[in-house]
Amino acid sequence: MPNTCYSQLEHVFNRIYQLQHLASIAHWDMAAMMPSGGSHARGEALAEVSVIINELISDNSTADLIQQADQSKLELSAWQQANLREMHRLWLNATSINSELVKAKALAGSQCEHAWRTLRADNNWQDFQPLLETVIDLTIEESQQRAEASSLSPYDALLNLYEPGQNSAAVDVIFAELVEFLPAFIQRVVERQKGDNITRPTGPFPIEAQRDLGLLLMEKTGFNFEHGRLDVSHHPFCGGVSEDVRITTRYSEDDFSESLMGVLHETGHAKYEQGLPKEWLSQPVGSARGMGIHESQSLFQEMQIARGQPFLQFAAPIIQQSLSNEQTDKQCWSAENLYQLNNRVKPDYIRVNADEVTYPMHVILRYEIEKLLINKELEVKDLPELWDIKMQQYLGLSTAGNYKDGCMQDIHWTDGSLGYFPTYTLGAMNAAQLYNAADKAIPELSQQIAKGEFGALNQWQKDKIWSQGSYFEIDELMSYATGEKLNTRYFINHLKKRFG
Amino acid sequence: MPNTCYSQLEHVFNRIYQLQHLASIAHWDMAAMMPSGGSHARGEALAEVSVIINELISDNSTADLIQQADQSKLELSAWQQANLREMHRLWLNATSINSELVKAKALAGSQCEHAWRTLRADNNWQDFQPLLETVIDLTIEESQQRAEASSLSPYDALLNLYEPGQNSAAVDVIFAELVEFLPAFIQRVVERQKGDNITRPTGPFPIEAQRDLGLLLMEKTGFNFEHGRLDVSHHPFCGGVSEDVRITTRYSEDDFSESLMGVLHETGHAKYEQGLPKEWLSQPVGSARGMGIHESQSLFQEMQIARGQPFLQFAAPIIQQSLSNEQTDKQCWSAENLYQLNNRVKPDYIRVNADEVTYPMHVILRYEIEKLLINKELEVKDLPELWDIKMQQYLGLSTAGNYKDGCMQDIHWTDGSLGYFPTYTLGAMNAAQLYNAADKAIPELSQQIAKGEFGALNQWQKDKIWSQGSYFEIDELMSYATGEKLNTRYFINHLKKRFG
Repeated sequence: MPNTCYSQLEHVFNRIYQLQHLASIAHWDMAAMMPSGGSHARGEALAEVSVIINELISDNSTADLIQQADQSKLELSAWQQANLREMHRLWLNATSINSELVKAKALAGSQCEHAWRTLRADNNWQDFQPLLETVIDLTIEESQQRAEASSLSPYDALLNLYEPGQNSAAVDVIFAELVEFLPAFIQRVVERQKGDNITRPTGPFPIEAQRDLGLLLMEKTGFNFEHGRLDVSHHPFCGGVSEDVRITTRYSEDDFSESLMGVLHETGHAKYEQGLPKEWLSQPVGSARGMGIHESQSLFQEMQIARGQPFLQFAAPIIQQSLSNEQTDKQCWSAENLYQLNNRVKPDYIRVNADEVTYPMHVILRYEIEKLLINKELEVKDLPELWDIKMQQYLGLSTAGNYKDGCMQDIHWTDGSLGYFPTYTLGAMNAAQLYNAADKAIPELSQQIAKGEFGALNQWQKDKIWSQGSYFEIDELMSYATGEKLNTRYFINHLKKRFG
Repeated sequence: MPNTCYSQLEHVFNRIYQLQHLASIAHWDMAAMMPSGGSHARGEALAEVSVIINELISDNSTADLIQQADQSKLELSAWQQANLREMHRLWLNATSINSELVKAKALAGSQCEHAWRTLRADNNWQDFQPLLETVIDLTIEESQQRAEASSLSPYDALLNLYEPGQNSAAVDVIFAELVEFLPAFIQRVVERQKGDNITRPTGPFPIEAQRDLGLLLMEKTGFNFEHGRLDVSHHPFCGGVSEDVRITTRYSEDDFSESLMGVLHETGHAKYEQGLPKEWLSQPVGSARGMGIHESQSLFQEMQIARGQPFLQFAAPIIQQSLSNEQTDKQCWSAENLYQLNNRVKPDYIRVNADEVTYPMHVILRYEIEKLLINKELEVKDLPELWDIKMQQYLGLSTAGNYKDGCMQDIHWTDGSLGYFPTYTLGAMNAAQLYNAADKAIPELSQQIAKGEFGALNQWQKDKIWSQGSYFEIDELMSYATGEKLNTRYFINHLKKRFG
């Protein structure tokens, strides 16, 4: 007898996938195309489709179907079983907090975020604090409801929304090793780099030329333009659907590098989406395996590949041809100079501008603080002080009184997305471990990259990561791809090799 | 006691509106932005949302709610009552044919349309005929099911899908008057225009300049760019939603006029959408009043305004400044020369290229033939012969053996959209009658247009048509706006004045 309950679930989740397709394109459109007057109506349409999707997942029949399908799960293929596991995960996420809390948090989050846009610019912590307190209180409530439904700790219940199967005990160990290593390493690198002799290319770099260069390097590194596009938005992102991936960037005529590296970063996300398992796209198991793995694919492309010497040997003449003008010193376009430019280390206040070495300290600081907030071991009013202490400790910088470059700089907490931050650094470490494995598996990988040949590497990533969707749990996936679960060794070795 | 059934219906139709918003943006994206590889997935997503919308309308509870709300309709405001009437209309459209027929027709239509793309190019009627026969048979079946549910005649039941409340008895009378007048008039105009001395501007006209010119004239004539955009697609259209209207065009470097007049035509559609009643947008009564009124707004802008002498007096220097180059004769940019260029009359085979005077004959020919098909008074195999006879009679051209420029030229019948064609000419006549009324109501309208002032005219159209949504039935709306229901007098007078 076929497992009809499972089939019914596939039907429900296919419907959800189709609605998500439309929502995803509408989100992209909102960021890249929509005229400003369209935003209210778009917000209403996207909110309604979220409600519909939530109703479909939370429907009473879904729980029954999952339970019954699970009872006959031995009739299912391994992928179907993994799909059922992911369906259950989505059902749990959708149903473990009550709808009043969802609404209250959405409202508080949107008010806090709206106010943040002006309060941050004004360095106005006093008016921001009560708004953030409301959001944090509601997020604590959320974490407790989720904890109860999932038998995870409150913080882990949030973390699992972004990094399914992950837990803070494991993250604590990993991050502790980075805290042990990084602060002193950062100081050494900064000291050493003082002696570097770098020539910074001066613009203007015409936007059309930057765009063409980005498109060219996207294509060379394996972005499939039959199934995606590049556009402009204020905040760069990777959106759309697997069959039609939309990445965005923004350009400055003074600096080509930020946009170019941004484009390559998003291309890493995009290739993951484009490479997801075709036959499972409409089902939960066909989607990407959490934010830490997603970020690993963008950082693989950006940090492991694009900012590395082999890639820049290949790309430097292309970049020069695209962007050099009569004013620019020929010397500045050498692979070596571009390499040094792309790997400057400097402790600074702002996470999103941070280099590869200091970035984890920004993340760990936030991770430690948000755990304390969720566990009620820190009050919002004491947040700026602790931020200042940790910034001094980790990066040697004080943020006393400087809220806008301190604890008010990110958008994540304003809408209650606690549990998200660690995925950035987990991603960076996954990327280093994956590159190490690829380097062992693919003969002469560096030489291939230096010649602009990415076929074998993309195939390896597709086999090991992209085409696996959410078939494995995260630890299993890393073991499948690299032979062991995530550890800090490869990331630290990578940093030593590139910056030490 | 409030009419709770009515409130529940508003809730259902609001949900439908939000889904239609996403579908509409996804349709626009498909035509204007989507990479080719995205089409299969997009098709699936759009098909699924159609199914969801249909389920929402056809749900058993909807019929009950409509019936119960109707019983207490005196508690409702006039707009709410009109809204309930439109809900009933949509419910009837969604439920009066069975779902097997819907599927069969969608399949046959898509097969026929797919084949048509190559068969038309090959002038291959023989292979096209059986495909079309299947579509027509299913459309006859549809018309009969709809007739039974609505107590209209089969053809009128189809016509009502596009032109709610309209009937072929009235259309017959109107079209008979045009058939009486036009063929002889066309001959006279062609004869008279032989003496015209016209200078055709020669390109190339850079696409960027054409685009800027289109944007400028859109803005001058009242398109609101806070709530809409202009892009490029293969088939120009007006899409999006009232709050965010997306129009498209396509450019040729050899000919600026087709794109420019196309942009102004779509701007007419767009202003209607942008002017719909804000407080009713999410409800059926807030949408446009059928295709004939929609086409009246585009043809008002294109035929009544943009191809007229006052507008070209205003626009000629702007067009010249945008597009003239050293090769072009200065003389060709005069308002008088552009006016003559924009109003050439020439009987030809292809409807979509037809001028304002011959266009109705193309439509009437199709209307007469499709009525015969639906009433089983004509078989598909005899279609080419009758087409040829009517083309000779109406436009003096033979299409014997020339199927691709004859009965295979349009896409409408391939997917079974019979009943649509008459709306083009009803739109042209509505436009002439509306312009006549506006001209009486607004002092010195021609002079205003000649100065590029469209404020009073747009306000008049907004008051009389746009902001009325679907509050009135079509005849009532025309009476509200012009004092009488549609008749041929104003259109014929307009043609005599412009071409006679």
